[in-house]
Amino acid sequence: MDQHREFIQAAYRQALASYNEGGLPIGAVIVEGGRVVAAGHNRRVQDGDPTAHGEMDCIRRLGRRSDYSTLTLYTTLSPCMMCAGTIVQFGIPRVVVGEERSFPGNRDFLLDHGVDVLLLDDSECRQLMGRFIGEKPELWSEDIAGRERV
Amino acid sequence: MDQHREFIQAAYRQALASYNEGGLPIGAVIVEGGRVVAAGHNRRVQDGDPTAHGEMDCIRRLGRRSDYSTLTLYTTLSPCMMCAGTIVQFGIPRVVVGEERSFPGNRDFLLDHGVDVLLLDDSECRQLMGRFIGEKPELWSEDIAGRERV
Repeated sequence: MDQHREFIQAAYRQALASYNEGGLPIGAVIVEGGRVVAAGHNRRVQDGDPTAHGEMDCIRRLGRRSDYSTLTLYTTLSPCMMCAGTIVQFGIPRVVVGEERSFPGNRDFLLDHGVDVLLLDDSECRQLMGRFIGEKPELWSEDIAGRERV
Repeated sequence: MDQHREFIQAAYRQALASYNEGGLPIGAVIVEGGRVVAAGHNRRVQDGDPTAHGEMDCIRRLGRRSDYSTLTLYTTLSPCMMCAGTIVQFGIPRVVVGEERSFPGNRDFLLDHGVDVLLLDDSECRQLMGRFIGEKPELWSEDIAGRERV
């Protein structure tokens, strides 16, 4: 569990960096062989890119590869259907989720497709996301196209 | 149907442009109120971006918006799980698919989530994709992470 906390904190630092840029505070890292090989965060505001959720930005920054089977994705917030579909399509086998209280996401979809999901219910992730949703509810709604459940 | 052919041809021209750049020949356009408001194509090779499938590039180029309910997405090839998940998350209500013989995609997933799907089985889309898969099978396999079915 300590290693999971270390890596979710790395994802949290990505989220916090985005928050400090005026963006959505959702971050992700990808770990392979015990080290972080890619990191990213939501860039909707920063790049005007609606597809740049934290997980997507992280996978994009990982770059081209043909095999994702050795990877674990850490994300501060439970994946939306875009990000969950991407995890399944690319065959990322393990996802560690900071929290899902702010957004339920698609844990069942991931599990149904054979993805291992570990939910940490991390208080730092929860508090940052809760603060942001309170401050900018319209921006949060835009990021998920108003769709808490799909 | 004639209007569908016109717009799928616009998506095909995107696919052909990508093919001529050495990339994957998959293109998309988004139509609103009878006119094309965004166009894009796969950019895995061009940008080194594994998330830049044709549909994703098109949605990215459309830019930020909070409501997708007036849009129709035209794509030369049946959407993979990343792209299907994105369509569902953003609430794009209609998808017109050029063909699904080269890749089955996720029509049932879209239908199960209330998306209208029209399959054209377009011969130009089929032929271009078939030629590409014959020429560069490894690149095609990389684009879907070897996962025809997820």
